[in-house]
Amino acid sequence: MATVADILAFMDTIAPRYMKMDWDNVGLLCGSKSKTVSKVLVALDPFEDVCREAAQWGADLIITHHPLIFRPIKAITDETEVGRCIQLLCAKGISLISAHTNLDCAPDGVNDRLAACLGLSDVQVISPAGTDDQGRPWGLLRIGQVPEQNLECFLGTVKSALGCEGLRYVNSEKSVSRIAVGGGACASELENAVRAGCDTFVTSDVKYNQFWDARALGINLIDAGHFHTENPVMEPVAEKLAAHFPQIQVKISEFHGDCMKYY
Amino acid sequence: MATVADILAFMDTIAPRYMKMDWDNVGLLCGSKSKTVSKVLVALDPFEDVCREAAQWGADLIITHHPLIFRPIKAITDETEVGRCIQLLCAKGISLISAHTNLDCAPDGVNDRLAACLGLSDVQVISPAGTDDQGRPWGLLRIGQVPEQNLECFLGTVKSALGCEGLRYVNSEKSVSRIAVGGGACASELENAVRAGCDTFVTSDVKYNQFWDARALGINLIDAGHFHTENPVMEPVAEKLAAHFPQIQVKISEFHGDCMKYY
Amino acid sequence: MATVADILAFMDTIAPRYMKMDWDNVGLLCGSKSKTVSKVLVALDPFEDVCREAAQWGADLIITHHPLIFRPIKAITDETEVGRCIQLLCAKGISLISAHTNLDCAPDGVNDRLAACLGLSDVQVISPAGTDDQGRPWGLLRIGQVPEQNLECFLGTVKSALGCEGLRYVNSEKSVSRIAVGGGACASELENAVRAGCDTFVTSDVKYNQFWDARALGINLIDAGHFHTENPVMEPVAEKLAAHFPQIQVKISEFHGDCMKYY
Amino acid sequence: MATVADILAFMDTIAPRYMKMDWDNVGLLCGSKSKTVSKVLVALDPFEDVCREAAQWGADLIITHHPLIFRPIKAITDETEVGRCIQLLCAKGISLISAHTNLDCAPDGVNDRLAACLGLSDVQVISPAGTDDQGRPWGLLRIGQVPEQNLECFLGTVKSALGCEGLRYVNSEKSVSRIAVGGGACASELENAVRAGCDTFVTSDVKYNQFWDARALGINLIDAGHFHTENPVMEPVAEKLAAHFPQIQVKISEFHGDCMKYY
Amino acid sequence: MATVADILAFMDTIAPRYMKMDWDNVGLLCGSKSKTVSKVLVALDPFEDVCREAAQWGADLIITHHPLIFRPIKAITDETEVGRCIQLLCAKGISLISAHTNLDCAPDGVNDRLAACLGLSDVQVISPAGTDDQGRPWGLLRIGQVPEQNLECFLGTVKSALGCEGLRYVNSEKSVSRIAVGGGACASELENAVRAGCDTFVTSDVKYNQFWDARALGINLIDAGHFHTENPVMEPVAEKLAAHFPQIQVKISEFHGDCMKYY
Amino acid sequence: MATVADILAFMDTIAPRYMKMDWDNVGLLCGSKSKTVSKVLVALDPFEDVCREAAQWGADLIITHHPLIFRPIKAITDETEVGRCIQLLCAKGISLISAHTNLDCAPDGVNDRLAACLGLSDVQVISPAGTDDQGRPWGLLRIGQVPEQNLECFLGTVKSALGCEGLRYVNSEKSVSRIAVGGGACASELENAVRAGCDTFVTSDVKYNQFWDARALGINLIDAGHFHTENPVMEPVAEKLAAHFPQIQVKISEFHGDCMKYY
Repeated sequence: MATVADILAFMDTIAPRYMKMDWDNVGLLCGSKSKTVSKVLVALDPFEDVCREAAQWGADLIITHHPLIFRPIKAITDETEVGRCIQLLCAKGISLISAHTNLDCAPDGVNDRLAACLGLSDVQVISPAGTDDQGRPWGLLRIGQVPEQNLECFLGTVKSALGCEGLRYVNSEKSVSRIAVGGGACASELENAVRAGCDTFVTSDVKYNQFWDARALGINLIDAGHFHTENPVMEPVAEKLAAHFPQIQVKISEFHGDCMKYY
Repeated sequence: MATVADILAFMDTIAPRYMKMDWDNVGLLCGSKSKTVSKVLVALDPFEDVCREAAQWGADLIITHHPLIFRPIKAITDETEVGRCIQLLCAKGISLISAHTNLDCAPDGVNDRLAACLGLSDVQVISPAGTDDQGRPWGLLRIGQVPEQNLECFLGTVKSALGCEGLRYVNSEKSVSRIAVGGGACASELENAVRAGCDTFVTSDVKYNQFWDARALGINLIDAGHFHTENPVMEPVAEKLAAHFPQIQVKISEFHGDCMKYY
Repeated sequence: MATVADILAFMDTIAPRYMKMDWDNVGLLCGSKSKTVSKVLVALDPFEDVCREAAQWGADLIITHHPLIFRPIKAITDETEVGRCIQLLCAKGISLISAHTNLDCAPDGVNDRLAACLGLSDVQVISPAGTDDQGRPWGLLRIGQVPEQNLECFLGTVKSALGCEGLRYVNSEKSVSRIAVGGGACASELENAVRAGCDTFVTSDVKYNQFWDARALGINLIDAGHFHTENPVMEPVAEKLAAHFPQIQVKISEFHGDCMKYY
Repeated sequence: MATVADILAFMDTIAPRYMKMDWDNVGLLCGSKSKTVSKVLVALDPFEDVCREAAQWGADLIITHHPLIFRPIKAITDETEVGRCIQLLCAKGISLISAHTNLDCAPDGVNDRLAACLGLSDVQVISPAGTDDQGRPWGLLRIGQVPEQNLECFLGTVKSALGCEGLRYVNSEKSVSRIAVGGGACASELENAVRAGCDTFVTSDVKYNQFWDARALGINLIDAGHFHTENPVMEPVAEKLAAHFPQIQVKISEFHGDCMKYY
Repeated sequence: MATVADILAFMDTIAPRYMKMDWDNVGLLCGSKSKTVSKVLVALDPFEDVCREAAQWGADLIITHHPLIFRPIKAITDETEVGRCIQLLCAKGISLISAHTNLDCAPDGVNDRLAACLGLSDVQVISPAGTDDQGRPWGLLRIGQVPEQNLECFLGTVKSALGCEGLRYVNSEKSVSRIAVGGGACASELENAVRAGCDTFVTSDVKYNQFWDARALGINLIDAGHFHTENPVMEPVAEKLAAHFPQIQVKISEFHGDCMKYY
Repeated sequence: MATVADILAFMDTIAPRYMKMDWDNVGLLCGSKSKTVSKVLVALDPFEDVCREAAQWGADLIITHHPLIFRPIKAITDETEVGRCIQLLCAKGISLISAHTNLDCAPDGVNDRLAACLGLSDVQVISPAGTDDQGRPWGLLRIGQVPEQNLECFLGTVKSALGCEGLRYVNSEKSVSRIAVGGGACASELENAVRAGCDTFVTSDVKYNQFWDARALGINLIDAGHFHTENPVMEPVAEKLAAHFPQIQVKISEFHGDCMKYY
């Protein structure tokens, strides 16, 4: 029977821990390596409802993108959501593994999947941080091509491809063909996208001054939502796990969607 | 004839500099106190187009909410927007005054005006930082009441009152009656809004995890846009200037709107 | 039925949280304020065996002197003792409250009890940090008197009064009458004891250079062990709890002694 | 027609930017790379009178040794000299390039020219920081030989060669033959000059304790003034520019001398 | 017989230690408070020659303005001047007391004496830091008046009054009547002198850019030398000591002059 | 005749200075390299009694393990022990060399000697920091083997081999065969000893929580005293000096033992 340690080792082939940012907290964040696993729940975030879903389904392990503990903690009480999650996981004996910026950066990770969803061709890593043990470059952003089109047309593609309820964007009067993508909050990478010759950048959690910076830099900037730009990776992660551990049931969280709505 | 120094002194009655945050940069950021002023352009931001508008109209002074220089700068070249703005202002002899967090915090400033626009009654400062020379409390957030209503109804009010093209929000299943407001990016104040007993918080530049935090804390959180939550203060600032300096022409920027669009 | 919140409030009368050192971590460190309590286990340390003892006895709450979490933590796994403790406490629904430097400093806390055990008379706080709401001075060290005697004689008293298996000390050729006490590792307070006119200082975890410093400063220094200088406070804490909450069973850990032996 | 960018590129051959100290601010500090240039004013410092001279002469570009902006600035007002300079330069469309510690360190820069003026032979770089693309060592101080002479004699040479109105010095009772030179304020390099076996060190802005340090270390120390030890480099810089850009008029500031006088 | 402790206590009436700057190191820096004293040598600096002079004369104590140890030291060897001084002082049993910035700031200290030497009338402390136990204001700089005169005339007065071999200065084209003085290296206080309405500032160790700053600010700046602006205080210190301790011989160092010469 | 410089150079072959920790202070800490040496006193610590012993015996040089100055000092007075030591050494012209963490780490240094005393075989450096010029690995801890035995038996060996009056230890129920040693206060290296597969760790100055950590990690931990775990190195140091400088008298301090006693 596979253990948490076995799955942690397999996750290191999908999202090697050396690819994480210095400030990040990834790997086994709760539980025990020696525990045997028959059910794995996969979800973007370790929210309380996700932990409850895992408990109800009888999961032994949760795999999330965002870490359960981000800032180190000094108490485990029911007054905070992370405290309630840890109490529930420990009470039910559920372990939790997070693959965060290592999954962003990895080949076939968050950003390669985002690029694929948007139909980009000739996808490349911008400013690779290194190459993995298969010689593939890895790093944060991806760049790729679409047939030249106007922004309106591309906005429609983004919305439908990612299943977004809405988008926010700034139109910098460029037609769309060379696109940078960064799932999650990557707007601080805006200048790298410009330097890479892009006319359009798709990311999320964009702030007011960043929309204006994009206009000043002459690049279309699209906020497609944090959930919708990162969640596409969860299905392939689940499929790889299921393929590698055929005796384990792997399920993507049914609960987890985006809580944010447009009006 | 009034000088930049006279207007700076008057701005200190509207938005006293002692109310600014420690990290902020406000006051006369470009130009000369001794310059006489016959035309003042008022705008939320010192963008290049705003500076051009000022130059074309023949303004002697620009008053903005956001500072022209935020991080101290080491060069004034045309490779950056702030460099181009400074070059244009110096070439045309236009001065620039910014009132930023001091205007956020001041009585009848950004947040009182936002509260008024939204029709809040019984408006109070949350955790006042002090009282001004008229004995009025000042501080960042405001709290107030609306007749109890459902969130859908209140979203309609926000959108129309502020003239937003769209809104983003999380519905925490509370009906709306006690509201906190923080113009601009105040979502880090979420817990203060909860502690003040609010069911709803209106601010902008909300990030993914902050929407989820709101849901976990049980408070409706509405992102009404940075521009639309702060811009309401500009008109009263312009009116006060015009009333106090009747010989000066005061105009609100025609150029300046929000560059960000919804799709 | 009393809750964890009630007991936390009572602990604040015995060891008010404002008396803690800045760097310390005290109060409710695991569990839930709303939980009702029928059994409380009291122990100097939150070791794994103590947690097991609590679980076997059916305790709802553990009260310890040393904090469960000292340095903030980034993961809760069975690879560390603190991780195993948290997992066990959460699995069993046991809460944990720590009163550390606040209990050291409080009137009738660690150091008053240590002074009482050693038979000191005319006990006073050295350099009080303040007075509590009953007007009593509080602070770290205590000073008191014994009838003048030689060091050999006093060593015998310390060993038997505290139940130590052994002692370590430096003899600075002073007869013993004016004594400073600091339970736990207080040897860095050596100069304060000298300044207070003491001939002898009882504390623990004394390092090589501190023994020599004592000799150079002309003060007898006795290391009576961390456990044995702090544990005397646990019994009165248990008694006060039992008296105030007559319906709750309070027990001092049977497991917990000192693991360190002399040879 | 040559542009500011062309001249910046040429300056990088005279004083490559990689030779600057970490804390320094050099290169294009005001203006625009795309501006065409027909007149260049060269001066040691970007003082207000120098900027005025440039404006009156119709210069398009000023090249200085000392940077226009040293500590990053938060406002551009006429209350500071740097603010007034920037306002004037922007109003007149004059760009400004500084080559500071890179020009100190470069082959044929400040210190090689100072050594040449003083008639040193066998000139070498002390503790070279590296070699340039022509294989020449570069670094801060230079060392060289003069025929052995007494200090009185060498003081006369320094004064006349550099055109100083006066000198300050300490006589450490060594005859003069092996000399270190550091234009500007290099007295903190005193021990390096001693380690290099020098009997005499010529620099400027020497403080009280540094004269005494020199006496204690047994080395003659001569303060020949900041202006007079650095200004010799400006003429060759001007000549190189004129030779490389024959269509551009290059002039050394007529205004700029040393404001400091002796009595 | 008076001890070092008695003299230290008396020095605290002349230059109270609470008046020192935070970064300074003053008081008993070498020796023993219990040593009896029959001979005191007074000198501006604790140079090696001063220590030798003290040893030859048979002094028990040296009192200096500049501290023997400024940066804390890690070794006491004959490879550094401070090491050699400490070795000599310890070998001869000579104690050393320094009164540095406390003597600068004290009433009748360095700066009051400098003002008196220059014949200033109506002398006041600029921006007093507090008042002493006699109600007298204390602080760094002094300001005072002279009959209006041209700078040339005042330079003559400074040179002869302080016995300087030379002066360095910048002439800002103001006639001289309101003067600020700061003995030692106080040029960083230039703006305070300007704010106090002075036309002329006398200090020492002035750097190139500070001369230019003075010109830009429109204030005459005179560098009269570190030694010559501070040494005037040593004689009154010696006289006060001799008057208060009639049985002690007090001598001002014969060796100590200024090592720096003009050419 | 050998000088202090010669002995310093020889000490660098026994305990090269590049092996010291970054925070350490070693080498010639008092005196003069040029002094000729006929008598050397060797001692673990530079205590005042050791300095007196050196003075009475007529030593020219003291060699200690612990540094005379650890934190840089700002005054040399008789109010501190280090001040009194420096005064005595300077008065008597005695130099002092310390070899601290460099002697801990060096081949045949503190830890190799401790391993030898305890009869360890197959001794190796744990996690070597490098190799010396003879190709020997160096670093802090040593590891080695003893015939498998129970802890009681090994405690007897430690006590008698090192001449300890007592030991403190925690018994983690492992039999003893693979031992790590770290003379002085090395308990923070506990996890390294565990990772190296040891069942037992001998060091000193062990704190309460470190004994419990050892128990949690399943390793026997023995505190054999700071003096007794480091002093074994002093005799071979003395012997090597005597062998290399046959004309010099070398003596180990008769005064120096451990001031700490057991009761």
